[in-house]
Amino acid sequence: MGSEAVRNKKVVLKQYVEAGRSPRESDVEVVATETVALAIPEGSPPAILVKNLYLSCDPYMRGRMTKHDTPSYIPDFTPGSVITGLGVSRVVESTHPDFIVGDLIWGITGWEEYTLLVSNLGSFFKIRYTDLPLSYYTGLLGMPGFTAYAGFSQVAQPKKGERVFVSSASGAVGQLVGQLAKRMDCYVVGSAGSDEKVDLLKNKFGFDEAFNYKQETDLDAALKRCLPEGIDIYFENVGGRMLDAVLPNMRTHGRIPVCGMISQLNLEKPDPVHNLFCLLIKQVRMQGFLVSEFYHLYREFEDEVVQLIREGKITYVEDVAEGLENAPAALVGLFSGRNVGKQLVVIARE
Amino acid sequence: MGSEAVRNKKVVLKQYVEAGRSPRESDVEVVATETVALAIPEGSPPAILVKNLYLSCDPYMRGRMTKHDTPSYIPDFTPGSVITGLGVSRVVESTHPDFIVGDLIWGITGWEEYTLLVSNLGSFFKIRYTDLPLSYYTGLLGMPGFTAYAGFSQVAQPKKGERVFVSSASGAVGQLVGQLAKRMDCYVVGSAGSDEKVDLLKNKFGFDEAFNYKQETDLDAALKRCLPEGIDIYFENVGGRMLDAVLPNMRTHGRIPVCGMISQLNLEKPDPVHNLFCLLIKQVRMQGFLVSEFYHLYREFEDEVVQLIREGKITYVEDVAEGLENAPAALVGLFSGRNVGKQLVVIARE
Repeated sequence: MGSEAVRNKKVVLKQYVEAGRSPRESDVEVVATETVALAIPEGSPPAILVKNLYLSCDPYMRGRMTKHDTPSYIPDFTPGSVITGLGVSRVVESTHPDFIVGDLIWGITGWEEYTLLVSNLGSFFKIRYTDLPLSYYTGLLGMPGFTAYAGFSQVAQPKKGERVFVSSASGAVGQLVGQLAKRMDCYVVGSAGSDEKVDLLKNKFGFDEAFNYKQETDLDAALKRCLPEGIDIYFENVGGRMLDAVLPNMRTHGRIPVCGMISQLNLEKPDPVHNLFCLLIKQVRMQGFLVSEFYHLYREFEDEVVQLIREGKITYVEDVAEGLENAPAALVGLFSGRNVGKQLVVIARE
Repeated sequence: MGSEAVRNKKVVLKQYVEAGRSPRESDVEVVATETVALAIPEGSPPAILVKNLYLSCDPYMRGRMTKHDTPSYIPDFTPGSVITGLGVSRVVESTHPDFIVGDLIWGITGWEEYTLLVSNLGSFFKIRYTDLPLSYYTGLLGMPGFTAYAGFSQVAQPKKGERVFVSSASGAVGQLVGQLAKRMDCYVVGSAGSDEKVDLLKNKFGFDEAFNYKQETDLDAALKRCLPEGIDIYFENVGGRMLDAVLPNMRTHGRIPVCGMISQLNLEKPDPVHNLFCLLIKQVRMQGFLVSEFYHLYREFEDEVVQLIREGKITYVEDVAEGLENAPAALVGLFSGRNVGKQLVVIARE
């Protein structure tokens, strides 16, 4: 590519989102920067220049939109600077020995057309199954899918035939958790926020039962209706009221992998949870995890799930926004549950 | 003993204690029953008749004093009937092949002078170190001590030099947790409800730091003062506000064995906990346990702690009430923290 000149459209954070409110489209903006020389600068440490193809909209990004006085587990975004997040990219120039032009990779990149990457290059995964839709590497075969796999197999440690409940079940993580659980002959119930999503759970992803939590006046009653014998594994994606309702329904030696608490992300003061005593009397293990702890298992996961995809044994639903112009709406929509399935943004298809 | 006639004084529950209030002395009463024949009835299944020596007052007994609509992990007491609980007893008659007259045992017996035991005899432990004070088998060498050992070694899985916080630290469980942690070169901080108890923690049990939670207006500030680098292991005995203050102070990969939530036992609606999001961002494991899961390790524990006692490397403080007449006050006092150290009742010393 050398020093070819291109424009580089990007999504920047306009201002921090205060704790206690949902992000709005106006909190981010799409900026069409001036034409720039597209090249790795002379004298740069080993680097790669990538063309970004698919961007992943993930719930954890909400935390980065708010300023924290004490550092969180991942840095805050900087107003005026490009948003970063997981994406699928193609290497267009490389001075780094591990990458060559044409490599397809996934990892943390910029929400922009081209990104120069000079650090943390070891955190990128090369995409080995390039015949599958590349967008899958923002979801089913990327971080969310691997989160489902690691959280279910490594943290929940399921046994055949157990009773599994998944919240936010039609989302990027939940849909795979449910299908992995069914493959272990578990009885699987999911909750979601619309009748359309409930229909997906039952008729596409093969959940045994599902309910629309927005239509239930009594979550405890809904859980008892769907899981009268209680819950061995609660795959926790939402937190708050749902978690509090689940706790008294846990069975002895139950496990709660804590993967997300999306209902809590926009609250200044998180919802109260009253029923933790149930952890004691039911000897329940509740465990927070970050997928990065398990990345040594990624290739094993990738091979296994690719095989299931090829055999038609895994279904996957994604919600695709076209173009960077639609990225702000896609990102913000995640926090009101507007997406159906994995939310991603296509910048370019190749 | 044959059919010798004795009186058999006992403590009975007069009425259920409603959820939402502390038990009062008037909820239980000491009844001097008529003189009864002291013998295993003819035609009885294999049984033992025991003379009860020491009774253990334990927080979990609060739950048994309230009527539950759905069964809890342990049955409710029955009004008008003798209270049961852990104690040290001597076998005075036996028709069971595993026991002979003179055996000293600990396990669930009646709060009375003599008890006829016909079922669950397999749950009793024979006391092997009869040269040590037998009362130790209601505490340091009994269920509470073993709870400390199992919860710390098996559930918390400590590493050398970690930062450990123990609530209710001068109690039967807490005092041993702290000392076991110090033996692993941990930095150990405890909380308790009086200056006298705080003094015990620092000057008798060897805690590095301790505070009186009743004197602290801001528990978070107290924790940050004593543990500025955060907490690797929180041995949870109290629940509620303390747990909520601890959560943001947990370190990455911290562990919270949930052993008790004594502050919550008298509440109809448990205190809210808001900070569970910290489980996720710090990848914390919070795990309820019951000591009975670990009883296969009891003899190993007993040998190890007896050795430490003989070498003067473990200290133990007990609060001894004399006679069944004082049992109601001893039991009730537990829930306001009146006891200093392990609360027990002596019925007879041999």
